[in-house]
Amino acid sequence: MAKSGASKKTSGTRAATKSPVPTRSPLAPARFPSMGPVAGVRLAGRAVGLKKHKGVKDLMVAEMAPGTTVAGVLTRSKCPSAPVDWCRAILPRGKARVLVVNSGNANAFTGNAGDLQVAQTAGEAAHLFGCRARDVFIASTGVIGEPRAPDYIASKIGGMKKSLAVKSWKNAAEAIMTTDTFPKGATRKVKIGKAEVTLSGFAKGSGMIAPDMATMLGFVFTDAKIPAPVLQRLVRTAADESFNAITVDSDTSTSDTVLLFATGQAKGQPRITSSADKVLANFKAALKDIFVDLAQQIVRDGEGAQKFVTINVRGAESKKAARIVGLAIANSPLVKTAIAGEDPNWGRVVMAVGKAGEKADRDKLSIGFGETQITRNGQLVHGYDEAPVAAYMKGDEITVDVDLGIGRGRGTVWTCDLTHGYITINADYRS
Amino acid sequence: MAKSGASKKTSGTRAATKSPVPTRSPLAPARFPSMGPVAGVRLAGRAVGLKKHKGVKDLMVAEMAPGTTVAGVLTRSKCPSAPVDWCRAILPRGKARVLVVNSGNANAFTGNAGDLQVAQTAGEAAHLFGCRARDVFIASTGVIGEPRAPDYIASKIGGMKKSLAVKSWKNAAEAIMTTDTFPKGATRKVKIGKAEVTLSGFAKGSGMIAPDMATMLGFVFTDAKIPAPVLQRLVRTAADESFNAITVDSDTSTSDTVLLFATGQAKGQPRITSSADKVLANFKAALKDIFVDLAQQIVRDGEGAQKFVTINVRGAESKKAARIVGLAIANSPLVKTAIAGEDPNWGRVVMAVGKAGEKADRDKLSIGFGETQITRNGQLVHGYDEAPVAAYMKGDEITVDVDLGIGRGRGTVWTCDLTHGYITINADYRS
Repeated sequence: MAKSGASKKTSGTRAATKSPVPTRSPLAPARFPSMGPVAGVRLAGRAVGLKKHKGVKDLMVAEMAPGTTVAGVLTRSKCPSAPVDWCRAILPRGKARVLVVNSGNANAFTGNAGDLQVAQTAGEAAHLFGCRARDVFIASTGVIGEPRAPDYIASKIGGMKKSLAVKSWKNAAEAIMTTDTFPKGATRKVKIGKAEVTLSGFAKGSGMIAPDMATMLGFVFTDAKIPAPVLQRLVRTAADESFNAITVDSDTSTSDTVLLFATGQAKGQPRITSSADKVLANFKAALKDIFVDLAQQIVRDGEGAQKFVTINVRGAESKKAARIVGLAIANSPLVKTAIAGEDPNWGRVVMAVGKAGEKADRDKLSIGFGETQITRNGQLVHGYDEAPVAAYMKGDEITVDVDLGIGRGRGTVWTCDLTHGYITINADYRS
Repeated sequence: MAKSGASKKTSGTRAATKSPVPTRSPLAPARFPSMGPVAGVRLAGRAVGLKKHKGVKDLMVAEMAPGTTVAGVLTRSKCPSAPVDWCRAILPRGKARVLVVNSGNANAFTGNAGDLQVAQTAGEAAHLFGCRARDVFIASTGVIGEPRAPDYIASKIGGMKKSLAVKSWKNAAEAIMTTDTFPKGATRKVKIGKAEVTLSGFAKGSGMIAPDMATMLGFVFTDAKIPAPVLQRLVRTAADESFNAITVDSDTSTSDTVLLFATGQAKGQPRITSSADKVLANFKAALKDIFVDLAQQIVRDGEGAQKFVTINVRGAESKKAARIVGLAIANSPLVKTAIAGEDPNWGRVVMAVGKAGEKADRDKLSIGFGETQITRNGQLVHGYDEAPVAAYMKGDEITVDVDLGIGRGRGTVWTCDLTHGYITINADYRS
């Protein structure tokens, strides 16, 4: 680890002072995964003029077969976008036929004009695909507070319909990008009973949320046949340990949306009536896995990120307490800048644990970076040698282990470092 | 405002990309105030070798006359430093004779060795000044987790005693600095009845907290005669609207300490028995004023700060809600980087209001920057022209006004922008 990191940097330079805005995140996966069809799903991604730069894809449409169920989680922001309001209203029905997602404009803080745009988009899609407006899910990401003509997106759906195809996953993933430096996709195959089902999805996000870019979106499609109430339980559980366990900058979007669509087209699948059904075990694992994969890709594309950071907390009073402590560490600008500076500054971890507000005991706190235990029971490990840890910090995958030593709660949070790149991107984004 | 800002920067450059670490904050006051004696207080600030650089002041001792009362507020961190534990234990007695503050070492996360050091320091000071150990208040700021010899500070107090003087305020303020770029002092004279009393104090802090530097310390001395329980009420109220209303980076120190000492040496002052006594009105105002002055100086010395930011929130459900919304805006990395980039990015303010979790209604939200109203009732003001606001953003004092439009709660929070300088300072501090 230390070597692979060191090899990328000339000695004496630091991640924090490297060229700040790479065209592709250094933490990106090598390539977009090869994604096959999900029975009952066709997609298209195209450029329709919502983004400033001509020819850059900015509209995604997905058509799902009749009978598709849907579940999802939406931002807890008290100032949500018009599309989020719309999805929240129609989600309890659990039925979906069309998904329309645009980038380039968030349709947030656009008042009545924003609601009108959503209504026109849903209405036009319903007309074109022969379904009801409330079967049409909508998400938008981009600049806040700049209303577009209410029929702008609606007028583009007809043209998109012609190019729908079962393999257009990469196009779709690209069409929802904002400041993302790479498209994010993931796919899994898994059995429910004897039936093989596919899960494929894509996501966007680069600040945990950056309101101008209206943050994190994730869409996963499966051909499994799962009733909406069961699907909703599965989504909540999986999202809690994936999308809800990442942070880039602690900011929460007006537009965060994660949706899971199940077309029910897989052949020979046993009937599912409960989320506790043991036949779902593999599916649940695969769903969590694909959510974690997409969530981690978002962190790997964190604005300005040079290092991918895993924070494991154990010994907390409860699972919830472990998450809160983990997020306090992950969101601390001082911890994040220390990691950017390749400084094994465990004192800042102590600080972050202290400020989290959860039960902690200074004299029971143990901290490790990578393979090295640094403190145990509130004091430096006898004979602690910083040299190997300093070498470890030069790598681009950093793990911080914290044991609060007071209970059995544990949890993991993923984040990235805070670099000059983040400042450059966000001090200059809109203008 | 726009002009004075613009004149400092060549057009096209941005605060965020300016030389990142100034030797003195561009927001610093012109000079340390002229501070006269406070009857019953003598101080000294000297270099005793705790800091790396030889000859840099790092120990401060203040002696207060017998009869001095004390009140204070301490960090809420669950991993407080040994001196904070000590102050918390002795503060309820309300009596003080000596204050010993060192920089260069936080004495935090130092286990039993840290407690031992505190005990030796208090014991030695008690011996030298003829008081009890529990009359000795102690604060430490600097690197975390590096225990010093337990008698190191104790062994220096005797030498300091000889140089105590009634006018050594600037020396004292300098001796408690860490990454501060200027010493922070403030003084006021005010009447209680017919007696003129003085309030003089100093503070340090440059990250709202930076654990390595162990954050924010503030000490104010007065010759008023005020019983400790009354003093404690006054401190809580004043701290809430000053030190608790500032943030640089949302991080909370292991060591935050604010103490107010009242020597009771002023002549002819009426007896005070209640914090509600009307004769205290001017004193209360002056106390809040001096706390706000010191707190704002800390923000003006915020790590990497190029702009001083005032966030006024009104129309909130309650005073507490207004504070929470104000802090959510002030702590948002996206709002702070937008201000660094001189971008009137009100969309990020919407995001921050939304994530605060307090009651808000998108369609009632009004936002203004400086003199310009940008949104009213959830939509852009008709004919909004960004040009004058963009010019305003080039100044180094930025005011953001938010009206939630749902209640009567209001509050003000002060912060600074988030610049490349913050990253540079914090990615490189310890090593």
